[in-house]
Amino acid sequence: MEVVDFNLIYNSLSFAIAAFGASTVFFFAQRSQVAPAYKTALTLSGLVCLIAFYHHLRMFESFNNAYTLIYGEVMVSGIRFDVTYRYLSWLLTVPLLLLQLVLVMRLSKEETYSRGMKLVLAAIVMVLLGYLGEGSVTFSQLGDRWVYWLLAMIPFSYILYNLVIALTPLILKQPKSVQNLISNTRWLLIVSWAFYPIIYLFPMFNQEASYVGIQVGYTLADVLSIGIFGVMIYMIAQRKSDVGA
Amino acid sequence: MEVVDFNLIYNSLSFAIAAFGASTVFFFAQRSQVAPAYKTALTLSGLVCLIAFYHHLRMFESFNNAYTLIYGEVMVSGIRFDVTYRYLSWLLTVPLLLLQLVLVMRLSKEETYSRGMKLVLAAIVMVLLGYLGEGSVTFSQLGDRWVYWLLAMIPFSYILYNLVIALTPLILKQPKSVQNLISNTRWLLIVSWAFYPIIYLFPMFNQEASYVGIQVGYTLADVLSIGIFGVMIYMIAQRKSDVGA
Repeated sequence: MEVVDFNLIYNSLSFAIAAFGASTVFFFAQRSQVAPAYKTALTLSGLVCLIAFYHHLRMFESFNNAYTLIYGEVMVSGIRFDVTYRYLSWLLTVPLLLLQLVLVMRLSKEETYSRGMKLVLAAIVMVLLGYLGEGSVTFSQLGDRWVYWLLAMIPFSYILYNLVIALTPLILKQPKSVQNLISNTRWLLIVSWAFYPIIYLFPMFNQEASYVGIQVGYTLADVLSIGIFGVMIYMIAQRKSDVGA
Repeated sequence: MEVVDFNLIYNSLSFAIAAFGASTVFFFAQRSQVAPAYKTALTLSGLVCLIAFYHHLRMFESFNNAYTLIYGEVMVSGIRFDVTYRYLSWLLTVPLLLLQLVLVMRLSKEETYSRGMKLVLAAIVMVLLGYLGEGSVTFSQLGDRWVYWLLAMIPFSYILYNLVIALTPLILKQPKSVQNLISNTRWLLIVSWAFYPIIYLFPMFNQEASYVGIQVGYTLADVLSIGIFGVMIYMIAQRKSDVGA
């Protein structure tokens, strides 16, 4: 591993720890600022950040056990840098993220429940399928990687379809003052989620460089799709609280 | 590294950990003492100190891995003392600091949003440009350092212009009892921020001594511009709460 690659992974992991730690505290502190109907969404935002904080802390620790920068050279200890943490993190965070968006729309109880359950199930299947192909990175395994990528794209597309098409009529029923914000939040989710299947394909194009690209890419995509997404959910909840919706 | 230099860096880092740890607790504890409109500003004060606390803790740990004082001599382990943490810290804290000042003025929603976004973007560009030149410290690289210094001075000047000129008419609309305090807070921000570009230029004048000067200087400037600044924001919020503004 080159020094520049070491620095990129090391710094992006530490940055994520700081960002997720701070946002966890933010959501729990600001939970008192929204109407009771939105407190659960804020709790979920805080939990998602806490889970991401924990897993990035573990990854940082694992990275430091595997590599050390000493006298300007990267020393390899032979201890594995464990990245299964990412999938364990997503297994918890992705379903909760989707629930946040459903909760903040404040649909009817039945609607919230049925939409929530479908999205949660699709998210779990998607993360598990992605994990099955994650280890396949050598040239002979790239076929497997494509297969799991394609399989994971089925629940991925189902979720995106729900967010883009099925939620649209419901967004139009939201107060005028937040329609724009909800629509922007949905777009942030779609764009930041689109990074993941693209990053997943990095080993197809460059097996050497893909390792660093995957680590840094996933971390920054997480900051966007979890942290910034949570802040936008908070803004929706606060504006809706202000207008009593 | 001389023993006196070791002591200066070691003690200033530990001092910062204590100062930022304590101020984090202060802001979250005192959040209950201000009116609802100012609670978000207090939350941000607490977060900024928490982020600075985390990064100074990491730097202290990194410094201790790199250097040890043993039998009156500084022993070098060869493990790098990583100061990228400063820039990672600023990438999060500087935008939040500026938002604190905007929030505590309690402008209209649109004014808060548009001013906030511009200042946040300028802050991010400034920190990134500063980082690009930070590694250039040897004689042959000083040209690069000047270039990045000059480039970073563009967003820096934009932010200062906003704080000094553009905010002035808005300050005059604030309650009489806090106009002075807001003006002093603005001056604290301007003076403490002016340290950074000056410290950045240390290697231009003395390459030997600059290393210690940079580390100690940045740490003390952070205590002023983050900790003391936060306390003044708190005082403004409390006085405005008292007069119901």
